[in-house]
Amino acid sequence: MNRKGILVVVSGFSGVGKGTLMRSLTERYGYYALSISATTRAPREGEEDGREYFFKTKEEFEQLIEEDRLIEYACYCGNYYGTPRDYVEDQMEQGRDVILEIELQGALKIKEKYPEALLVFVMPPDAQTLASRLRGRGTETEEVIRARLARAVEESAGVEKYDYMIINDDLEESVEEVHRLIDSQHNKISRNLDFVEQIRDEIKTFAKGE
Amino acid sequence: MNRKGILVVVSGFSGVGKGTLMRSLTERYGYYALSISATTRAPREGEEDGREYFFKTKEEFEQLIEEDRLIEYACYCGNYYGTPRDYVEDQMEQGRDVILEIELQGALKIKEKYPEALLVFVMPPDAQTLASRLRGRGTETEEVIRARLARAVEESAGVEKYDYMIINDDLEESVEEVHRLIDSQHNKISRNLDFVEQIRDEIKTFAKGE
Repeated sequence: MNRKGILVVVSGFSGVGKGTLMRSLTERYGYYALSISATTRAPREGEEDGREYFFKTKEEFEQLIEEDRLIEYACYCGNYYGTPRDYVEDQMEQGRDVILEIELQGALKIKEKYPEALLVFVMPPDAQTLASRLRGRGTETEEVIRARLARAVEESAGVEKYDYMIINDDLEESVEEVHRLIDSQHNKISRNLDFVEQIRDEIKTFAKGE
Repeated sequence: MNRKGILVVVSGFSGVGKGTLMRSLTERYGYYALSISATTRAPREGEEDGREYFFKTKEEFEQLIEEDRLIEYACYCGNYYGTPRDYVEDQMEQGRDVILEIELQGALKIKEKYPEALLVFVMPPDAQTLASRLRGRGTETEEVIRARLARAVEESAGVEKYDYMIINDDLEESVEEVHRLIDSQHNKISRNLDFVEQIRDEIKTFAKGE
């Protein structure tokens, strides 16, 4: 069976826990490759270059764009965010499933360029849970939280174009669910046309008694 | 999440073991509903009406066709085969995933009527295994086996239109693989648009501080 890597794009409402989910997934199953985005936004407390993001200057970022070394990029709140091409394509070529955690607009651009990409949207079990998680961080006022919720809804316009959703209720279960989902995609007929052709030829040979 | 039943159509080369696979699946996971076809062919040794098939006379079968009580039917080797509609639709309405084991032409007709149906093709790991399994039955001459292999290849024209394939190497593994595959289909965004709409509305309400 063809084990060419799958490009998995994960998005979700702010606060839904997709970062934790993806980190748990890649820690548990070592063969996933987690793509790291490049950005021009300033590092936050505790963030490290090459771990959360590749932090770039505006000039460096624009050079990446010019050299076509990003598979998608967008400007968001005055900062650039983008996905470096080399890492994604190298890993897929080696048969590793690559996970990108990006927002919806970028995800839909990726789907245009890579129609076989798997788009997954992480949902909260209900709105109450999402609001509680945002409040639980304790770093924002109630007004900021409401504004983020409102923006999250706006930013989810187009989610119908995603392939699958995962309801992130229990972290352990969600990790297994995402893993099984990605794994099952390797069985798509469209990813295995070479195998189908090969087995048909083999059966023909047997039928002729060769 | 929407748990409306999924219509799962399973096909595969003769001798690939799809019957055993489906029986094991439905025995292990009680919530699958296995659809039983109607046919005008004579029962074979050990077959029971209502277990392997619903055995019908030509007149009875043609009445089912006339009353539109089959979701697909075909004539094959001089006999009718068809899938009774009521059972399939009732079970799906109750949220049970319904499994049909039918040949490729029927499967593609079903996909036209039920675009959300999941089409799965069971493959042998290699041609050698398929030929050995056919020989292993010990009931056929080598010539008959070769003719069946040749026909199997012809009958697989169009398999590219299936959604997924399962390589039936180890029965236990294949059962789990089919189960996980079907299960993951419940997470398709296209099956959960109501949930998506509902959660968006809920979040909007929270954002307004209501």
